[in-house]
Amino acid sequence: MLALGLLAAHAALASGGGEGAVDMLPVLEALALILVLARLGGALFERLKLPAVLGELMAGIVLGNLGLIGFHGFDFLRSLPLVEAMAQLGVLFLLFHVGLESDVGKMAAVGVSATLVAVLGVVAPMLLGLGVAQAFLADHHPLSHWFVGATLSATSVGITARVLGDLGKSASLEGRIILGAAVIDDVLGLIVLAVVTGLIQAADAGRAFDVTGLAVIVGKALGFLLVAVVVGRWLSRVTFRFAARLPGEGLLLSFGLAFCFLASFLAGRAGLAPIVGAFAAGLVLEDVHVQALRERDAQKRDLRHLLEPISSFLVPVFFVLMGMGVDLGVFAQPGVLGFAAALTAAAVLGKQVCSLGAWGPGVDRLAVGLGMIPRGEVGLIFASIGRTLTIGGVRVVDDMVYSAVVVMVAVTTLVTPPLLVWRMRKGQAR
Amino acid sequence: MLALGLLAAHAALASGGGEGAVDMLPVLEALALILVLARLGGALFERLKLPAVLGELMAGIVLGNLGLIGFHGFDFLRSLPLVEAMAQLGVLFLLFHVGLESDVGKMAAVGVSATLVAVLGVVAPMLLGLGVAQAFLADHHPLSHWFVGATLSATSVGITARVLGDLGKSASLEGRIILGAAVIDDVLGLIVLAVVTGLIQAADAGRAFDVTGLAVIVGKALGFLLVAVVVGRWLSRVTFRFAARLPGEGLLLSFGLAFCFLASFLAGRAGLAPIVGAFAAGLVLEDVHVQALRERDAQKRDLRHLLEPISSFLVPVFFVLMGMGVDLGVFAQPGVLGFAAALTAAAVLGKQVCSLGAWGPGVDRLAVGLGMIPRGEVGLIFASIGRTLTIGGVRVVDDMVYSAVVVMVAVTTLVTPPLLVWRMRKGQAR
Repeated sequence: MLALGLLAAHAALASGGGEGAVDMLPVLEALALILVLARLGGALFERLKLPAVLGELMAGIVLGNLGLIGFHGFDFLRSLPLVEAMAQLGVLFLLFHVGLESDVGKMAAVGVSATLVAVLGVVAPMLLGLGVAQAFLADHHPLSHWFVGATLSATSVGITARVLGDLGKSASLEGRIILGAAVIDDVLGLIVLAVVTGLIQAADAGRAFDVTGLAVIVGKALGFLLVAVVVGRWLSRVTFRFAARLPGEGLLLSFGLAFCFLASFLAGRAGLAPIVGAFAAGLVLEDVHVQALRERDAQKRDLRHLLEPISSFLVPVFFVLMGMGVDLGVFAQPGVLGFAAALTAAAVLGKQVCSLGAWGPGVDRLAVGLGMIPRGEVGLIFASIGRTLTIGGVRVVDDMVYSAVVVMVAVTTLVTPPLLVWRMRKGQAR
Repeated sequence: MLALGLLAAHAALASGGGEGAVDMLPVLEALALILVLARLGGALFERLKLPAVLGELMAGIVLGNLGLIGFHGFDFLRSLPLVEAMAQLGVLFLLFHVGLESDVGKMAAVGVSATLVAVLGVVAPMLLGLGVAQAFLADHHPLSHWFVGATLSATSVGITARVLGDLGKSASLEGRIILGAAVIDDVLGLIVLAVVTGLIQAADAGRAFDVTGLAVIVGKALGFLLVAVVVGRWLSRVTFRFAARLPGEGLLLSFGLAFCFLASFLAGRAGLAPIVGAFAAGLVLEDVHVQALRERDAQKRDLRHLLEPISSFLVPVFFVLMGMGVDLGVFAQPGVLGFAAALTAAAVLGKQVCSLGAWGPGVDRLAVGLGMIPRGEVGLIFASIGRTLTIGGVRVVDDMVYSAVVVMVAVTTLVTPPLLVWRMRKGQAR
């Protein structure tokens, strides 16, 4: 008893603060496991000439589904918010890095194209999803059908950003269109969710739709993008000019990261996904701003160089955790598979329609369409919001619909890396 | 209302998983704030020719005590386990890095010296602390006096490791003696805590002292160190030989970090502080093991190179949080200051006695003694365990004693960096 009590007390030693102590031991165990499995999965898939990120996802799927064969030794991995937070920082760094590879001018050059791709990419999958819902869920309320369509709207850009980065194609014409469209996509998705949810809540309560609330949401999101581009560029120049006058080491990385975190925080506050802020931070932060600090570094490392080891640590954590979110048990549920297959087809085809909006010298529309396929967490969050909504006492998203969305997310996430690598490498060979 | 609900829902988007979602926004805000303030504090102190780490601690003290002047806008920083966990990873990376700078052979060369320093450094402060407690707390139980002495026993090596690293002195004779002594110190502190706590519990319950429980604790701690050195070296060689055969990038960093996390986890499981494991991992991981992977890197970076940006991100977070833990309000409590001053003097002088155990060609005993001064979280945890213990219904550590321990921890933490820098630079000039 004494031994046990002391062990627990001493474990708290790790957390260096008495009050609010954090138990680091499960986190350390989880990180060791995740890092090794991510690299093993990546290495296996590289040997099979498939993208490493797919191997990391597979490692996660295996870890997350060992319960199906009765092994529950890794179940503790699911309940570690600290590891989840590391994963979230990983995807922020990924998008920050992608933003650094481009700049505002280059993105503006594909602005019209990206906007068209985004709008078509929200409208087309929604309409196709609506059709699928009408066909399979005839007894549901018409607004439920619209909600199912809405879950297909927003692209989740993490996977595509990673594949483009691995291929060194983040700054290609197709890469920029996809990334720009994904940012606009997020704004549009937010609006779609607000409208559909508002209509459902109004219908359920028998009152009118709240237009003011919608205007606030849209205003905040657009306001953030405007502020990020205009004020962000100025702030970046001023900040790094100031930092260059300070003595000491590590200033470039610390101020760069702080800039990224601040933008991500503000994006979140504006109702957007924080990764949109991280991407914007990278976009407005230009090489010339950090030149003076870079010159001071003994090895002349720029921000991308300094970020690389941090990303190399945290990004695979994100993809392993994303894989763990795939519940293979869902595939075995009766009635789910047919609807899920139709929904997935709508998701994939809808984003191929959007590629018609891409234009530019020699643009590869298929590559753009493939890059827009993944839905990831955005679709899942839409679906889980739908579970909390009811019309006349009936849930808008029932278990079957939710499971089908999970399958759609899993399939769109997993098919993208191999398809995109195949297409981009083919484009390179031309 | 719609707007608010959606914002909350969309904020959850950030956490990418529906269930167990983490709210990243306060974490992002906190990290941006902490990174900038840490660098500003560091830069200010560098300009004053004082160690940067002291500036980071001061930034933390300011952040943590704004409540005293009525500003509570940063109070949310105290309740963020995710930021706390980042800080803990920071100090792990710091000790891992320090371990990498040395190896088992070099540490063994100072083994006798480090052991003597550790034993003297636990015994001398304990006896001095016992004397101070007897003088100031005459009405307390004699075992309470011993407990107060015990809170002075274990060195907290984070601060010293950072200062030595900044000075490039981690591998110096004095540096190795301090680090070795700190590891042994942690084992001894664990034993002291077990014995004193056991005696108090036995006295309170009127039963005999549990010798078996003590033997288990000691056995586990010593077992970990033995396993770390013997099995760890073999495991490190085998692991990196295996990793070198895998295709893909980032293997050196991922396997290195996983190795560090595993050792930290095992140290924690053995009842030791996880940083002891991180240090041991760095110690047994030798350059020759990672040679093959290093050759594959385009820039031939070794593990220390790759760790540097990660440490540069996370280590200042640790020191700012450590500063935030200093409650300046304690200094104003009546009756605390005299006892606190005597306790701090016992803590500082006790560790100067231990420097008599240091020997070697031209060893600077004063530098060793100064490096052993900081108590940090270990003392705080001892004190908070004492608050949960009673003898005959009276608390072993009452509010006054606890506050005095907080003052002792704050002072020993803050005086070490300037003193150690002064002494090590002087040594260099000789």
